[in-house]
Amino acid sequence: MESRNQLKNSAKRIVVKVGSAIITHDRGHLSAPRLASIVEQMAHLQQQGRQLLLVSSGSVAFGRRKIRDEVLKSKSIRETISEKPLLRPFAENRAAAAVGQSSLMSFYESLFQQYDCKVAQVLVTKADFSNEASRQQLRNTMLDLLSLNIVPIVNTNDAVEATVTSNLTNGVLDLKQADMADILVEDNDSLAAILAVELECDLMILLSNVNGIFSGPPDKKDSRFYYTFTPKHNHDSYIQYGTKSNVGLGGMQAKVKSALWALKRGTSVVICNGGSAGVINKVVQGDRVGTFFTEQVGETESSQLAAMARDGSKSLMSIDAEARCSLIKDIANALQAHEGSILLENERDLNNAKNEGLEDVLLSRLKLTKTKLNTLRVGLNQIAEKSRNQLGRTLKVMKISDSLNLRQISCPIGVILVIFESRPDCLPQISALSLATGNGLLLKGGKEAHFSNLCLYKIIKEILESYNCQDAIQLVDTRERVNELVTLKDHIDLIIPRGSNQLVRSIQEQANMTPVLGHAEGICHVYIDKEVDEDMAIRIVLDSKCDYPAACNAMETLLIHKSILETNLFTRLCNELKAHRVKFNIGPRLAKLLPFYNSYCTNYAIEYGSLECTIETVDSLDDAISHINRFGSSHTDVIVTSDQVAAEQFQKQIDSASVFVNCSSRFADGYRYGLGAEVGISTSKIHARGPAGMESLLTYKWILEGSGDIVTDYEGGGTKQYVHREIAFPGAS
Amino acid sequence: MESRNQLKNSAKRIVVKVGSAIITHDRGHLSAPRLASIVEQMAHLQQQGRQLLLVSSGSVAFGRRKIRDEVLKSKSIRETISEKPLLRPFAENRAAAAVGQSSLMSFYESLFQQYDCKVAQVLVTKADFSNEASRQQLRNTMLDLLSLNIVPIVNTNDAVEATVTSNLTNGVLDLKQADMADILVEDNDSLAAILAVELECDLMILLSNVNGIFSGPPDKKDSRFYYTFTPKHNHDSYIQYGTKSNVGLGGMQAKVKSALWALKRGTSVVICNGGSAGVINKVVQGDRVGTFFTEQVGETESSQLAAMARDGSKSLMSIDAEARCSLIKDIANALQAHEGSILLENERDLNNAKNEGLEDVLLSRLKLTKTKLNTLRVGLNQIAEKSRNQLGRTLKVMKISDSLNLRQISCPIGVILVIFESRPDCLPQISALSLATGNGLLLKGGKEAHFSNLCLYKIIKEILESYNCQDAIQLVDTRERVNELVTLKDHIDLIIPRGSNQLVRSIQEQANMTPVLGHAEGICHVYIDKEVDEDMAIRIVLDSKCDYPAACNAMETLLIHKSILETNLFTRLCNELKAHRVKFNIGPRLAKLLPFYNSYCTNYAIEYGSLECTIETVDSLDDAISHINRFGSSHTDVIVTSDQVAAEQFQKQIDSASVFVNCSSRFADGYRYGLGAEVGISTSKIHARGPAGMESLLTYKWILEGSGDIVTDYEGGGTKQYVHREIAFPGAS
Repeated sequence: MESRNQLKNSAKRIVVKVGSAIITHDRGHLSAPRLASIVEQMAHLQQQGRQLLLVSSGSVAFGRRKIRDEVLKSKSIRETISEKPLLRPFAENRAAAAVGQSSLMSFYESLFQQYDCKVAQVLVTKADFSNEASRQQLRNTMLDLLSLNIVPIVNTNDAVEATVTSNLTNGVLDLKQADMADILVEDNDSLAAILAVELECDLMILLSNVNGIFSGPPDKKDSRFYYTFTPKHNHDSYIQYGTKSNVGLGGMQAKVKSALWALKRGTSVVICNGGSAGVINKVVQGDRVGTFFTEQVGETESSQLAAMARDGSKSLMSIDAEARCSLIKDIANALQAHEGSILLENERDLNNAKNEGLEDVLLSRLKLTKTKLNTLRVGLNQIAEKSRNQLGRTLKVMKISDSLNLRQISCPIGVILVIFESRPDCLPQISALSLATGNGLLLKGGKEAHFSNLCLYKIIKEILESYNCQDAIQLVDTRERVNELVTLKDHIDLIIPRGSNQLVRSIQEQANMTPVLGHAEGICHVYIDKEVDEDMAIRIVLDSKCDYPAACNAMETLLIHKSILETNLFTRLCNELKAHRVKFNIGPRLAKLLPFYNSYCTNYAIEYGSLECTIETVDSLDDAISHINRFGSSHTDVIVTSDQVAAEQFQKQIDSASVFVNCSSRFADGYRYGLGAEVGISTSKIHARGPAGMESLLTYKWILEGSGDIVTDYEGGGTKQYVHREIAFPGAS
Repeated sequence: MESRNQLKNSAKRIVVKVGSAIITHDRGHLSAPRLASIVEQMAHLQQQGRQLLLVSSGSVAFGRRKIRDEVLKSKSIRETISEKPLLRPFAENRAAAAVGQSSLMSFYESLFQQYDCKVAQVLVTKADFSNEASRQQLRNTMLDLLSLNIVPIVNTNDAVEATVTSNLTNGVLDLKQADMADILVEDNDSLAAILAVELECDLMILLSNVNGIFSGPPDKKDSRFYYTFTPKHNHDSYIQYGTKSNVGLGGMQAKVKSALWALKRGTSVVICNGGSAGVINKVVQGDRVGTFFTEQVGETESSQLAAMARDGSKSLMSIDAEARCSLIKDIANALQAHEGSILLENERDLNNAKNEGLEDVLLSRLKLTKTKLNTLRVGLNQIAEKSRNQLGRTLKVMKISDSLNLRQISCPIGVILVIFESRPDCLPQISALSLATGNGLLLKGGKEAHFSNLCLYKIIKEILESYNCQDAIQLVDTRERVNELVTLKDHIDLIIPRGSNQLVRSIQEQANMTPVLGHAEGICHVYIDKEVDEDMAIRIVLDSKCDYPAACNAMETLLIHKSILETNLFTRLCNELKAHRVKFNIGPRLAKLLPFYNSYCTNYAIEYGSLECTIETVDSLDDAISHINRFGSSHTDVIVTSDQVAAEQFQKQIDSASVFVNCSSRFADGYRYGLGAEVGISTSKIHARGPAGMESLLTYKWILEGSGDIVTDYEGGGTKQYVHREIAFPGAS
């Protein structure tokens, strides 16, 4: 299979190989919880109608322990009657295998039993494959078992098999060599591979005790993890493996070798960590866990993408502000020059979208027009102008002493990952903002805008090349890739997800140590105070709700001071909302006061994103403020009032990014704020808040210049004194 | 036991009760992985020399399934010969128990076997406890088994026992009623409790399928989780439980009842989620998992602490800047007034620290002196002065249109958790900074400064009370508490850990979605360029390394331009470092060029924190820059050079929070930067960078004032136009 996503549907026959490192732990004890979970997952998959096959190591390690115990018990006695050692060392492994095999099987059986799942034991030797007759026989037996929904548990018959050792002994594997024509049953990895090919399995899962393949020792800081691995994969380089487990013949080299061998013959392979919870299900679900082997020519690793973006940031820093400014202007002009082709590609997206029945509101976001492109061009030129004094700008100057000067200078954040939704005009906007601020950018657009984005990106890329900054912006292809990038905390400095709540949430959760700028919900309130201009109130409510209901800055909850209920305004509001086809749900407090109502609000903290809203009443301004601070999402909240004192209290006490007085919540927007454009709207408390423009893509560093100053001169009766005077400077904003 | 910490050592005899909801899942299948993990943990504890006892439900559910299968199989046949139902409904449970019990036991046995652990089956009925003779008998048998290191697996003998139902049927439990004198074997919870008391167990662990006790339904947003639970616990309130599992007689009410009953008789109890990994080990380790029952009167829940701090922040906001200023000044004066008692308490800490053999460098940090307290007072007064124009300060004013005005106003971040190390003078400094910025503060100081911190806190608290802001600062007692607070993302807005690398790391990892301000490592470089004043170079190197080696801004790596190696400076540097007892390790590149050296540097990215450093050479300024950007920690890096061009390139390209020219790395400090004091030093890219003072404890909100403006008036040929002009304003910095 070319991609993981296909596994879910196509993986009908699956061979799972568990290494002894997974099956046993210290002193050869069975790791019962791991085994139980592996069995549970396999049984689960079988109940989905898939055929499962288990190749299990571990009998040696397991049996060796039992023998050891036995030896200890009987040694003393035997020693008295004979001097010769109890077991010939080289015989021990086989004896151990024989001892271990039986107990291991009975344990597997007791586990599978819990899921009404029958198992069969199959022991094979190398000869069974070299001899054509027995090979056929084996094949038929296995197919019979599988068709009977019995799980064959296969192991090498070590008791009779002449012990073989892997011919790969050094810690390094030459991939060319590994891509060999034939393979022997050297270990359970190759056994699994051969069975997979013999029985035309769709998928082979090799459960190891490491997460998969790394470019170097997993514990080393700069070794990269390979989520996908192809035979062509860095063909010129070698891959290093950690040392293999001290029991079992496997080890990572043998795994890769077997994996490539099976892959070449049509079986997909995943090498993953059998110790991590639910890993088998995840693999079959198509999740990016472990290393997926595919013939598909190697895509660039995500960490590489990020590294390129970082280099791009450096090249942006190396050209001066004027150059960055004209770079953005060139893009603006190029967009105009290529207007035709852009609209053509956009047309393709629109047609696909229509065929997939995309809602009109989304179609209108997706659609590019000459007007939109023109506004876009104007916006880019604004950003270009602003860009002149953004980067390397002095924010603060301090005289620390007669010989020490401290300056605070703005600089780029570094590498920024932006995930944005259907609007393709976001792409040039966000690109311009990050170019203006010297950041490296990783961009992921909505797939519905695929062709538009690609076309826009190509145009930008061309300009970037002419300034030798081609790496500064990288287009990210798939959602999987995003999930991967999000976890690369050493490579990404800031993540900006723009899209559905669950997108933002999932990214916030995955990102862990990388800062995320954004908002999960936009639960915006409009509060109508007791003293209010009725017409104004109605205008603002309608614009806040109806201008663009899907936007995050649209009103979700209308709060009304109870005194309004007696007035005519309340009725007018309801009628107007009805007239604009807005469905409204009555909150618990208001419901008590109304003789009847159509729909009841069950949850204040809900974002409708459509022509629907909640209406609730409050007894006072204080109540309104605490309601908003409790149930809002600190996005944008509005008060409509003629009372200046009330307005001030609202401004002071509402704990939101944007607090509005007597205007529509829809103004919460980077362009409308005069920031040129926005990379997103933030509801978090630190760094940027509200609509985030250029400044939110900048950080700063402290530059201290001295002439040989050391702290001992300043402290404990030193010869120098601190002055600590802030200094005004030209261009101080 | 009064606290969880004691469990680790004192829990010698432990009864574990597993509910059927843990043992079985859908359609009564055994949840083998869970059971296996529970058994593994119990075996592990037994190998530590503890005595384990297992009370296991599940036989009914498990057996019922088997019977169901049996019924299905035989029904058709039997129906042909008889019409009467196969089983009398009320008999089914007992039959099921009999069927289930045997299979359950054999599965337990096979699991315990994996750890060479012997088990014994014990079935009891109510009568066995009411009849004194059999009760004695049972007790002796159990004690014998335990002393033989055999794990008794106990269950009610449902096959013969007359089925009883819990007398607690409503979803609500009155705690007074629960605190009853006597108890019956109504279910396995009470059975476990009785056995725990009978056999003087130290600890009873009730494994449920929920995490423990909540103040309301676990899924409801504002129900709080109780980490600790006392009989007195909200005695005036009722506790609600989720619905109990539909198999087994237990349910949460029965658990709490049994727990309180056993607790009263000297057994510690923890109710926790048997489904979460390693939960039994964690409980015995004393980790804060599940609900711990203790007689100790209920401590405040952590979420409550945070909520109080948030209220405190509100009260700080409600008083004006002048009041906040004089509040801080009052604290400064109070510190002077109470100097005597402060030094006395500090003496206690010092004595304890000496007895525990704390290093001198740490002792000097711990020690308070009249001088230190005086400097502290001066600092606080500086902060007080600065505080006047911090909060609610206008950062930006924009004319959006003739009727729309936008202002960016500074406001507090909210609730900040600061964990700081031995220096007790941090406490008043950080307090002052957060009071000046209107933030609620949760403070955790080093335990070695326990008495000093407590004394300082009391003094501050008194002043806060006089301003009616007593909740603004909360002292956090234990490290456990910190671990808990760190996870409360809805309650804490910013975490500032100051301390060891592993402290900062662990908190960064736990915090997940809460921003963390800080730095894990301070790997600072001093680079000596080719054109340089020799004496200056030596002064700076010595000060950077020796002034205070334990500090994060001390030099770790000395980079030297290769041309220096031929000069006399290199020899002088080495000799001076030797003279100051600095051990230095030679980097790989330099090692190649030297005839001999004592010690080799194995890792560039190491923070010594002592009189030790790395010396390495570079071929050029560019090499120096890329070395620093690669191996540094973006904390503080220094260039010593007489070449202005080189200095500028260094400033521009070094990607660190503090970039110094010709001065000691030790200047990277909030006080030395003139910020009054620092809450910490940040190496992260966003929000604060470098020494973080007042400004880094502030965020902003956007205030938009209009007169009924709506976006439709401005867009698509509306009647109004955007102006977007930034407006200069008084006090613009």
